[in-house]
Amino acid sequence: MNYLSIKDIDHLASWVDQARKLKSAPMENKALGKGKTLCLLFFNNSLRTRLSTQKAAMNLGIEVMVMNFGSEGWALEYGDGTIMDQGNSEHIKEAARVVTQFCDIVAIRAFATLTHKEKDEAELVLNAFVKYAGIPVLNMESSVGHPLQALADAITIAEQKTKARPKIVLTWAPHPRALPHAVANSFVEMMKLQDVDFVITHPKGYELNPVITMEAKIEYDQEKALRNADFVYVKNWSSYSDYGKILNQDSDWMMTKKKLGPAKLMHCLPVRRNVVVSDDALDSDQSLVIEQANNRTYAAQLVLKKIIEQL
Amino acid sequence: MNYLSIKDIDHLASWVDQARKLKSAPMENKALGKGKTLCLLFFNNSLRTRLSTQKAAMNLGIEVMVMNFGSEGWALEYGDGTIMDQGNSEHIKEAARVVTQFCDIVAIRAFATLTHKEKDEAELVLNAFVKYAGIPVLNMESSVGHPLQALADAITIAEQKTKARPKIVLTWAPHPRALPHAVANSFVEMMKLQDVDFVITHPKGYELNPVITMEAKIEYDQEKALRNADFVYVKNWSSYSDYGKILNQDSDWMMTKKKLGPAKLMHCLPVRRNVVVSDDALDSDQSLVIEQANNRTYAAQLVLKKIIEQL
Amino acid sequence: MNYLSIKDIDHLASWVDQARKLKSAPMENKALGKGKTLCLLFFNNSLRTRLSTQKAAMNLGIEVMVMNFGSEGWALEYGDGTIMDQGNSEHIKEAARVVTQFCDIVAIRAFATLTHKEKDEAELVLNAFVKYAGIPVLNMESSVGHPLQALADAITIAEQKTKARPKIVLTWAPHPRALPHAVANSFVEMMKLQDVDFVITHPKGYELNPVITMEAKIEYDQEKALRNADFVYVKNWSSYSDYGKILNQDSDWMMTKKKLGPAKLMHCLPVRRNVVVSDDALDSDQSLVIEQANNRTYAAQLVLKKIIEQL
Repeated sequence: MNYLSIKDIDHLASWVDQARKLKSAPMENKALGKGKTLCLLFFNNSLRTRLSTQKAAMNLGIEVMVMNFGSEGWALEYGDGTIMDQGNSEHIKEAARVVTQFCDIVAIRAFATLTHKEKDEAELVLNAFVKYAGIPVLNMESSVGHPLQALADAITIAEQKTKARPKIVLTWAPHPRALPHAVANSFVEMMKLQDVDFVITHPKGYELNPVITMEAKIEYDQEKALRNADFVYVKNWSSYSDYGKILNQDSDWMMTKKKLGPAKLMHCLPVRRNVVVSDDALDSDQSLVIEQANNRTYAAQLVLKKIIEQL
Repeated sequence: MNYLSIKDIDHLASWVDQARKLKSAPMENKALGKGKTLCLLFFNNSLRTRLSTQKAAMNLGIEVMVMNFGSEGWALEYGDGTIMDQGNSEHIKEAARVVTQFCDIVAIRAFATLTHKEKDEAELVLNAFVKYAGIPVLNMESSVGHPLQALADAITIAEQKTKARPKIVLTWAPHPRALPHAVANSFVEMMKLQDVDFVITHPKGYELNPVITMEAKIEYDQEKALRNADFVYVKNWSSYSDYGKILNQDSDWMMTKKKLGPAKLMHCLPVRRNVVVSDDALDSDQSLVIEQANNRTYAAQLVLKKIIEQL
Repeated sequence: MNYLSIKDIDHLASWVDQARKLKSAPMENKALGKGKTLCLLFFNNSLRTRLSTQKAAMNLGIEVMVMNFGSEGWALEYGDGTIMDQGNSEHIKEAARVVTQFCDIVAIRAFATLTHKEKDEAELVLNAFVKYAGIPVLNMESSVGHPLQALADAITIAEQKTKARPKIVLTWAPHPRALPHAVANSFVEMMKLQDVDFVITHPKGYELNPVITMEAKIEYDQEKALRNADFVYVKNWSSYSDYGKILNQDSDWMMTKKKLGPAKLMHCLPVRRNVVVSDDALDSDQSLVIEQANNRTYAAQLVLKKIIEQL
């Protein structure tokens, strides 16, 4: 079993229930992972994912090896048939197969380049590990998805919702740097698995991949979109059509306490205060951002538990 | 319970006794830390502190996650109300709260900048974690203190002293780089908790923070200061009044075996040989520097034990 | 007991047998390493060695601390009597002694400089740890040897050979960068411990250290050397006589499936595809490169087991 995208969740409601049960007794399965090893490979920086996935593994008694592939290993080549006489020292074909000699599960973080749309959409790094590893692969944020984050978000919403069919708004917000679409993509996909009133709002030109948003409602007027929202998920992303570009930095799109109204505030973190979300919103009781981070552990723990039960 | 400075030691003599007991049977409390997690966050390099704190945690059965915050995480913002449109990606308010979702104790290493006295004295990084973390915080060397080192030094002196009230000299020594005051500060504070004959010696202009040295004897003549010393603690620091500056590199202040006389030699390490201390002093039987490093484990183990007993 | 070079193997055939037994039941000695700590110190990058040595330790119940000495610790000085007023902050005399306060075994990776032949041959870093550490030292690739790799290679050959006295060829191959001699050296030394038909082939000027190759057959004609080979070990190295220089990048020396004939292909990895070895050779069933990597775990596990049994 791999956990590569939201598509790997067979029944979201049941997964959320199981994760909440783990959260209430996180150490109960400490014996389950005995003798199992998880290798975390980071091609990019990480705080929450690094620590929560380690913690989740520890809770299950799984031993963890962490490696910053970029700085501690060798530069990887992905091309088929390449004459490797340039900078890259090792081919993914060997690297992936080799890593899996030393562990039972491998987790990968490899962000989008935001320069090569085709390569990013092909999930070059993640899929190369899937293809060559031969052991379960866990996505710790890839070019186009961050399914551990989205699962943690689903847990958070389930814990916090006060009506059967809440209104949930995913709103774009400005940011000084070009950011990937992974978090937004997985959140949208996760929304589709639930019966919720879901709206996406962003400036024109910031449409996400239409294959992903297909049936989702898009409202370009943020104020209208936010009306009567129960949950507001704030996230920046760069343009998808004008791939990786920043088209807009209009601070009117920043989320504030006033705009939020009585809704709960969500963000995957890290968040740039007073650029993406204002202090008054982040510091209010309506903010769920820390609880989202907390639920990262139980999202990862559930996925790891499912994987080792099938080993 | 936090361990932020020497002030967090309620009864030094009793702590030293307890640490020495741990040293004689370090694995006896292996069950105590079961299911507990310690997160080590490094904003600066480390050898002794990194390994000894890990080892201490292992001895108590605590699981450890180590993170180089600078290179593996996100650049942190500390300002209140900042519009975060510059280099820093995450605010300490989120980072500190988030980290504490994944562990039971957090340990921080964050050196002085030596450029912003006020910021350094405010212990910006350490205190931000204390303020926002909500779990015990352990100081692995902050801007103004290194209390794990000082506790290890107290253990070493207790093991080695042959008279009830030894004479202990803290002497400045030259160094090619501007170094922080943390080690010297904590050593001075630790001296005040004991009935010893304590003297500080350094060139004029190298006075430590007078709030810290307040009642300590200062003798500008190194030769006079060293007379009849039982322990000589050698350490460089940059100027405090002319903050972070190097005013003097006079090699006459280097510690040598001749100057040492029959006294025991102490240094926190790393030490630059033949600049701070001569080879003949470091290589003599009078040197305690390796035993000081060894005692780092038991200092950390005692503090961690006290913290988890109160969790 | 140290494991510094192939010379530390007292009886290769017996070691290989023991390693193969460990491989068949790797978790059987999980209790053996209880309460023991291994410290891995990396002065250079690593993938296989990093993960396999960790995994081997875990299999034995040994706790592991990993440190990238270069980026996480202090720059080391090795000279005797140096006045340390330049870049290096800590002397190996202190660093080595200190590290050993915190662990029971220390493993070191420190590559050849390829600029200072004498320093490289003196195994400056490795031998300094041996001299000052006072605990068992494990070589994770030093300037002149990689004995964990060679032991894994011996295991692989033992598993795969179909005749009592196979023909084994070590062949040089081109590479865009100057590489160390460590892997080739240890392979040659390991060959000498077995009754095999061993041939080394390389262009003129690429003779390895004659002290190491002494009795080995050298054949400058690769085609002739490869005739009737059972195992072909491919490896690039820079010139030894014109120390660290690249004299030849002739792609005619690249290993291909055609050249390989029916022989098994070996390489320590990382390998540059279509420069050192062609795709068709690496992707063929004759390739043992992944199994060699797999056997790294059992080579390390055997050595660690022997070390802790003698602690």
